[in-house]
Amino acid sequence: MRIITISREYGSGGREIGQRLAERLGFEYFDWEIIVALATKSGLEADFIEETLSNIKLQTFPMDYHCSVGRNASLQSNQINLLLEQKKVIENIPILGKDCVIVGRNADVLLKKYKPFNIFVCGSMESRIKRCEARATKDEILTAKEWEKKIRSIDKNRAHVRELLSGSDWGNPKAYHLTINTSNWSIDSIVPSLMECANRYFNI
Amino acid sequence: MRIITISREYGSGGREIGQRLAERLGFEYFDWEIIVALATKSGLEADFIEETLSNIKLQTFPMDYHCSVGRNASLQSNQINLLLEQKKVIENIPILGKDCVIVGRNADVLLKKYKPFNIFVCGSMESRIKRCEARATKDEILTAKEWEKKIRSIDKNRAHVRELLSGSDWGNPKAYHLTINTSNWSIDSIVPSLMECANRYFNI
Repeated sequence: MRIITISREYGSGGREIGQRLAERLGFEYFDWEIIVALATKSGLEADFIEETLSNIKLQTFPMDYHCSVGRNASLQSNQINLLLEQKKVIENIPILGKDCVIVGRNADVLLKKYKPFNIFVCGSMESRIKRCEARATKDEILTAKEWEKKIRSIDKNRAHVRELLSGSDWGNPKAYHLTINTSNWSIDSIVPSLMECANRYFNI
Repeated sequence: MRIITISREYGSGGREIGQRLAERLGFEYFDWEIIVALATKSGLEADFIEETLSNIKLQTFPMDYHCSVGRNASLQSNQINLLLEQKKVIENIPILGKDCVIVGRNADVLLKKYKPFNIFVCGSMESRIKRCEARATKDEILTAKEWEKKIRSIDKNRAHVRELLSGSDWGNPKAYHLTINTSNWSIDSIVPSLMECANRYFNI
């Protein structure tokens, strides 16, 4: 069983790369599917789960203490429960025994024992803002500055969750097999390149 | 004309990757050749040039001022002259009009206008010490701790020279197209993978 994990900076095109890679390799694809599984298991709305998991902030103990009242306490407890549930869902993916691409959610750390091929996708802030603007829905009219703020906030969240799960830094190239910068290179070229890299890694 | 540049952490296997990539692609290879060209131009010994260029330390102005006496002054002036000469040698490589792989020496920054394909090669400290031990000559009997010290010192030097030449950080994945971690992946698999990446980048 071959597992490819894709971690990525927000707006870097990592999800698109993952989807196209899975399609071309004929692998299963896991991304939103994980959230849907969580929704089915928990009875919560998928959007609520995604939103909750996207807003995790690490807090020191004294801060936790002060925040552990009312809404904050239940939010934190929701987040921790959902993170644990998500962890279980991801750890169960290999039971299916299928080759797959998993985007985000620290699958590289959680499935380490299966020796996945781990890719990190990054890009310049400028190119990421451009990509966000291009794919924005009608409800997402943000200025470049607002996009940058959103990108930084989501990246920070991803780094926080990784910190919770693993000692290694999010985005540190030594934590992945390969780090790809999508700023000056088209995704059309990157996808077949990564396909070849994955095939070579798995000795195909 | 296609130019591939390989920047690398000491002991990561970057030089071997560069050599094999050039061989398989039928590209010219530049590494020690640059030092030889510098030696011919300057009349200095190649080993002396390599040694001098490997020991560049950034100093702030007050420190420069205090150091600018005696041996330190001439060493620094040697270093600056050699760096400038090396810069010229690298900037002249494209005049040959040949596809090439250039290892180290900030060719990615110096030849930016030729849109080279820029690779950074890294690895865990453990795997780099192992590689250094395996390729050490009889005169290089170092303990693991001594290797680590040497590795950190050479990497620091490389980071310093890059800082002199460019605003971007040495080893920052956003400064390269692709960053490859050689720790858990054989160079035999990495070389054909990178070949495909380069071919795709150059639209072959």
